[in-house]
Amino acid sequence: MSAYVALEARFRRASLIQEAASILHWDQAVMMPEGSAESRAEQIAALSLVGQEIVTAADMPDLLEMAQEEVLDAWQEANLREMRRQWVRQTALPSALIAARARADSACEIAWRSARSASDYAAVLPLLKEVVRLTREAGHAQAAVLDVSVYDALLDQFEPGGRVADIDPVFDDLADFLPDFVARVLDHQAACPPVPLEGPFPVPRQEALGRRFMATLGFNFDKGRLDVSHHPFSGGTPEDIRVTSRYDDADFLTGLLAVLHETGHAQYEAGLPAAWRHQPVGASRGMTLHESQSLLIEMQVCRSPAFVSWAAPLMAEAFGGEGPAWSADNLLSLMTRVARGLIRVDADEVTYPAHVILRYRIERAVLGGDVSLEDLPAAWNEGLADLLGIRPPDDRRGCLQDIHWYSGAWGYFPTYTLGAMAAAQLFSAAKAANTDIEAGIERGDFTPLFTWLRSNVHEHGSRFSTNELLTRATGRSLGSSAFKAHLKERYSSN
Amino acid sequence: MSAYVALEARFRRASLIQEAASILHWDQAVMMPEGSAESRAEQIAALSLVGQEIVTAADMPDLLEMAQEEVLDAWQEANLREMRRQWVRQTALPSALIAARARADSACEIAWRSARSASDYAAVLPLLKEVVRLTREAGHAQAAVLDVSVYDALLDQFEPGGRVADIDPVFDDLADFLPDFVARVLDHQAACPPVPLEGPFPVPRQEALGRRFMATLGFNFDKGRLDVSHHPFSGGTPEDIRVTSRYDDADFLTGLLAVLHETGHAQYEAGLPAAWRHQPVGASRGMTLHESQSLLIEMQVCRSPAFVSWAAPLMAEAFGGEGPAWSADNLLSLMTRVARGLIRVDADEVTYPAHVILRYRIERAVLGGDVSLEDLPAAWNEGLADLLGIRPPDDRRGCLQDIHWYSGAWGYFPTYTLGAMAAAQLFSAAKAANTDIEAGIERGDFTPLFTWLRSNVHEHGSRFSTNELLTRATGRSLGSSAFKAHLKERYSSN
Repeated sequence: MSAYVALEARFRRASLIQEAASILHWDQAVMMPEGSAESRAEQIAALSLVGQEIVTAADMPDLLEMAQEEVLDAWQEANLREMRRQWVRQTALPSALIAARARADSACEIAWRSARSASDYAAVLPLLKEVVRLTREAGHAQAAVLDVSVYDALLDQFEPGGRVADIDPVFDDLADFLPDFVARVLDHQAACPPVPLEGPFPVPRQEALGRRFMATLGFNFDKGRLDVSHHPFSGGTPEDIRVTSRYDDADFLTGLLAVLHETGHAQYEAGLPAAWRHQPVGASRGMTLHESQSLLIEMQVCRSPAFVSWAAPLMAEAFGGEGPAWSADNLLSLMTRVARGLIRVDADEVTYPAHVILRYRIERAVLGGDVSLEDLPAAWNEGLADLLGIRPPDDRRGCLQDIHWYSGAWGYFPTYTLGAMAAAQLFSAAKAANTDIEAGIERGDFTPLFTWLRSNVHEHGSRFSTNELLTRATGRSLGSSAFKAHLKERYSSN
Repeated sequence: MSAYVALEARFRRASLIQEAASILHWDQAVMMPEGSAESRAEQIAALSLVGQEIVTAADMPDLLEMAQEEVLDAWQEANLREMRRQWVRQTALPSALIAARARADSACEIAWRSARSASDYAAVLPLLKEVVRLTREAGHAQAAVLDVSVYDALLDQFEPGGRVADIDPVFDDLADFLPDFVARVLDHQAACPPVPLEGPFPVPRQEALGRRFMATLGFNFDKGRLDVSHHPFSGGTPEDIRVTSRYDDADFLTGLLAVLHETGHAQYEAGLPAAWRHQPVGASRGMTLHESQSLLIEMQVCRSPAFVSWAAPLMAEAFGGEGPAWSADNLLSLMTRVARGLIRVDADEVTYPAHVILRYRIERAVLGGDVSLEDLPAAWNEGLADLLGIRPPDDRRGCLQDIHWYSGAWGYFPTYTLGAMAAAQLFSAAKAANTDIEAGIERGDFTPLFTWLRSNVHEHGSRFSTNELLTRATGRSLGSSAFKAHLKERYSSN
């Protein structure tokens, strides 16, 4: 048996184990009784350890070396590259450090839940210090083998190939562009406020409408489900996709747009190359492209006049809505309303980058030692005031609002805005390549759009780097121009 | 590190992997979309292979040997014995045979589903032949290492230590006893038919009543759930127990008694020794004791006058029932109605053993070569006529009705009736040991009963053999006398 074939068998098993863990994660969020959390954590830890042992087996360097000498086609070459990438990352960290991080992250995350409710940053600070200490240690270890900076090494976990040197110029550009732009949009929107919708909107009808739209987007319910969880997500496996949302009977748009967002993630997974299932090259490329697929659907498509003109009557029908509030124009106004808010997850697409840039700058400063964790709340409040002109009255609505840092996910935040930029760039290229894409959306036909996304994004899996893929699909590497053009078109002209 | 401690770590991991598989099985039966079946089978196969590799690792014989020389307490000794048992069983089978069986069983089970609907035994016969051929091969391999007969080796998978030599006399005794007894009960019951209940019984109310009774039985919903599946089962893990039932809005008793039955299984798992979680000695003892716990609750307790006198008003309240049909006496009559029927899963406790003895005798004859698979339908129909005086009009209601043989579970059937006998023997001993058990049931208080079951059955895990455990708990090894006494008391006197 060739070394390459042996490697495929090993990674296939690691993928199946990872899929089992993924279903257990879904179950934990959607089904599991609360008292079972501890035992579930043990099951998932065992699966994760088994997967890690497969990838870091003692003979892996030899196999990787030998496979490099074999005759491989382009996909196999890319697969071997991704195998090596996993091996390098996982062997970089001593297992004692992995275990220590898992414990510290978990302890801090639990403490964060009550600290957030109580708006008590001091209560979680000692645990956060430990998380950051270990994150830095892991970052150093990975930076050494990847030959990049500590922050790049952390970012690289979520966005392979993502580098500060590429992000800084586009984020600086956005940070310059946004303050004036936001001010103009707010002025403009203040002149023509939308008519509010009158609830209540019964949850079963919201869910039924979500399912209807999912089906229209091509979601295959024979290989997937829609359920309810505390935070919306898309999980499971490419052949068993588990989408979740949450519903508020006073407001159906938030839950519905979450369904659409997660369906974008789901369709990316469903469109990954079937021939490379269970192989590293068959997996999604990284968080930037993943978020680009959800934001392309939620932001670019579903908050567009084309989609809303088709969807408005279905929304009205679902809730028995009548009158001017339910016109496509008014619904579109409601769906593109901009506001300076304190909470990232509630932010519109115009102000969202400010939240991300704030976090990106702070996490770099903290990891670089320029801001101490004691000073983090102050840095947050100053930073938000600079970027968005508002100041959190407490840490609950400030630096305690997001789980990421407290659960050890340092280096994750930039991918949200990188994803938003990639979404704009991809959708613009798609519409230019096929004029029936927008016309299709207007008649509720997403086939032209997904045909383009399949062949330009989904079916490449991890064959190319994010920037290679974007260059092939859009003619250039990731930048802010399509995103800014999109914002200007949508928010300056209506 | 001592060899014994090393073994504990390995079996702990194998148990965690097995628990993950168990949650995936539940998900498959309750949640999974249909189109994901194939990918789920691959995930479960990968987990099963990982577990098998842990137990059959090359250095296991050395570790087991070395541990034998170490100073161990009684629980550790028993744990080591159970570890060795797993190792012996799993190494007895070449992995090619395990894989071939998995494939043959799965192919036959799928074919059986349509063959049963079409009542077409010939359609599944070639696949069944392959299943039996491989089952026999596996039985021979295990018989050789266990030094028992092929049938005993197969039975031993489900009922450790179960032997034909012990079963034959009790089954023969029951087979002698039942025909006249059934005839007398039927005569007796014909004289006083119960008043039928008038439905419909809305499913949400059935489920709510099931939950209420589960809570009364001590089921901990903080570490367990109740859901719906095609066939009722109790799965999950001891700290995350997943009970299922199914409901028919024309008949609430069947679904409710299935809930109670599965809750008996669930309470056994919940009561296993916490100090030995994830160790072989901490697991349930075997199918006989497992079935004894479900039947003790469903048959011995919940169809008793004591329980029904407490439960009847709650049932009436749940469905707004009024009048003589809802009296405790009438509900009890409905719950203890005996009939000669063709279908095992619908059988009452009096005629049930006939169904089991039929299958037990046939599977021994088939495996022993005394009945060919071509002649199986005829042997079935003859056998049922002999044992129960009725004859299936087609194979759908005859030898095609149960999944067991077609999915490779040869040697399983006897445990149902062994469980029924054990249930009678345990409940009789429990009532004799503590007179408040029956009084407690009459007031909806199951604490006295479960206190006895915990300390006499559940918390021993797999420390003793089934017969040792029964002897300690009831003063004698498993026999038919308590079961016959129970049947006589319940069915001859009312």
